Amino acid sequence: AVLGARKMEDYGRFLALLGSALLVGFVSVVFSLVWVFHYREGLSWDGSPREFNWHPVLIITGFVFIQGIAIIVYRLPWTWKCSKLLMKFIHAGLNTIAMILAIVSMVAVFEFHNARNIPNMYSLHSWIGLTAVIFYSLQLFLGFAVFLLPFAPVPLRAALMPIHVYSGLTIFATVIATALMGITEKLIFSLKNPAYSASPPEATFVNCLGLLLVIFGALILWMASRSHWKRPPEVNAKVLRPIGGIPEGTEAESTMTDGSNADKSDVRINSEAARKQNPKLDEAGQRSTM
Amino acid sequence: AVLGARKMEDYGRFLALLGSALLVGFVSVVFSLVWVFHYREGLSWDGSPREFNWHPVLIITGFVFIQGIAIIVYRLPWTWKCSKLLMKFIHAGLNTIAMILAIVSMVAVFEFHNARNIPNMYSLHSWIGLTAVIFYSLQLFLGFAVFLLPFAPVPLRAALMPIHVYSGLTIFATVIATALMGITEKLIFSLKNPAYSASPPEATFVNCLGLLLVIFGALILWMASRSHWKRPPEVNAKVLRPIGGIPEGTEAESTMTDGSNADKSDVRINSEAARKQNPKLDEAGQRSTM
Repeated sequence: AVLGARKMEDYGRFLALLGSALLVGFVSVVFSLVWVFHYREGLSWDGSPREFNWHPVLIITGFVFIQGIAIIVYRLPWTWKCSKLLMKFIHAGLNTIAMILAIVSMVAVFEFHNARNIPNMYSLHSWIGLTAVIFYSLQLFLGFAVFLLPFAPVPLRAALMPIHVYSGLTIFATVIATALMGITEKLIFSLKNPAYSASPPEATFVNCLGLLLVIFGALILWMASRSHWKRPPEVNAKVLRPIGGIPEGTEAESTMTDGSNADKSDVRINSEAARKQNPKLDEAGQRSTM
Repeated sequence: AVLGARKMEDYGRFLALLGSALLVGFVSVVFSLVWVFHYREGLSWDGSPREFNWHPVLIITGFVFIQGIAIIVYRLPWTWKCSKLLMKFIHAGLNTIAMILAIVSMVAVFEFHNARNIPNMYSLHSWIGLTAVIFYSLQLFLGFAVFLLPFAPVPLRAALMPIHVYSGLTIFATVIATALMGITEKLIFSLKNPAYSASPPEATFVNCLGLLLVIFGALILWMASRSHWKRPPEVNAKVLRPIGGIPEGTEAESTMTDGSNADKSDVRINSEAARKQNPKLDEAGQRSTM
């Protein structure tokens, strides 16, 4: 009973953090809209600054908020009864939407620049931003080929999963850093009289938007790196495979989280024991984290 | 023998990554000096732009490079024979140096601003940068009080370690994001004829510095989140404590890494078994990660 109460307490903590992340992410999207409609020229697709304005709105909606949710979607406890395959589709689907929004938002900037003869790709923001989009697309393509299509053998999945998790979180953090650079650029370029340094209301408001993005990122990274909020390994898969084989669940063993999941302590002891019987497989697992 | 060869291979990989991180970090510091001496006015402490120039140099040297090394110092295999206490002093010492350099670099900017009547603390860069310095100082103070001074009980240390690790890595990533914003600001403000958008050599050079900072951060985060490169738990501490107690080693069990360290599989099975005998302690460990 005490154990059950503590599990509920932990579940409550997860819900509180999830609620905070959703709230901060949602408020960030609202802030981007207020910025664009109240302080700037609004939205349209005509080569004007209103076309540029799609850039912050779509990046914050897609590349920050939706990507953040895609990262933690496996951790929602009420999805643990859904099939792993369905969750993979949701994870891949959300990331695909985020990628499309990021690409459309880049097209908006290029068209705006070209309409005004502003050079493209000169700033650190553009260099890192484009690199992030390219790595994100690669990550999505490789994730689809290895983890969603049924062809990749289990040891390959196990070997690539730590890299997939690390790349995903690193790209997500880089995207937020790029958004902060973009906010900095846009405020310097567009605030002229009064200037950014005079702290007009728009400057303070958009600085707050930047802070919200950092808080959102920190919440997502915390939730994504707590091992005890991880989706439990598949029971079916474990039963169907011979002892000593790598269970499907190891795929979910992100290397950004420790392994101290109480629910899995039995599984852990068994799989540790199995690995000891089969040190070669264990070593393969070790190498995989490189 | 095969196992040994694989261990050497893994050790070689660690060394290659460490070498890369040191090289990229060192080149970043050199780039900051070339920026300041070749493209800008050099260094001095007189309220001129040459005083401002201490800001990028000290931030990149202290707050990025030295902080990065401080993060991975426990992972250097040749330090594993040194006492944990000595390593804690080195970790805390490097972080203290980084904090001092960060504070001095902020003083340089405030003095430069004040000498020229430029407002302070208006930009997102300054907001997030000051927040990062405050959190970094708090982290250092709390780390010192809990992990270095001998007063904190072991369960408290175990409870706070995941937070310490998460905060450390998040602050480090935030510092790099802030440096990227700072580079963006400085290039826009100081490049006038030709402007940043005309991509003069200084713009391209400093953009490359920004890329190096991202690569350095990514290398440090990778090394810090691989569980198999973790310092092994203290053997003495384990022997001195009753079974079922939390060994000193668990303090080092960062929650950003999984627990699949082959060297520790024996320890792991024993401690899992011990936890099963003592579910209350286990639950305390679970709650700790919140």
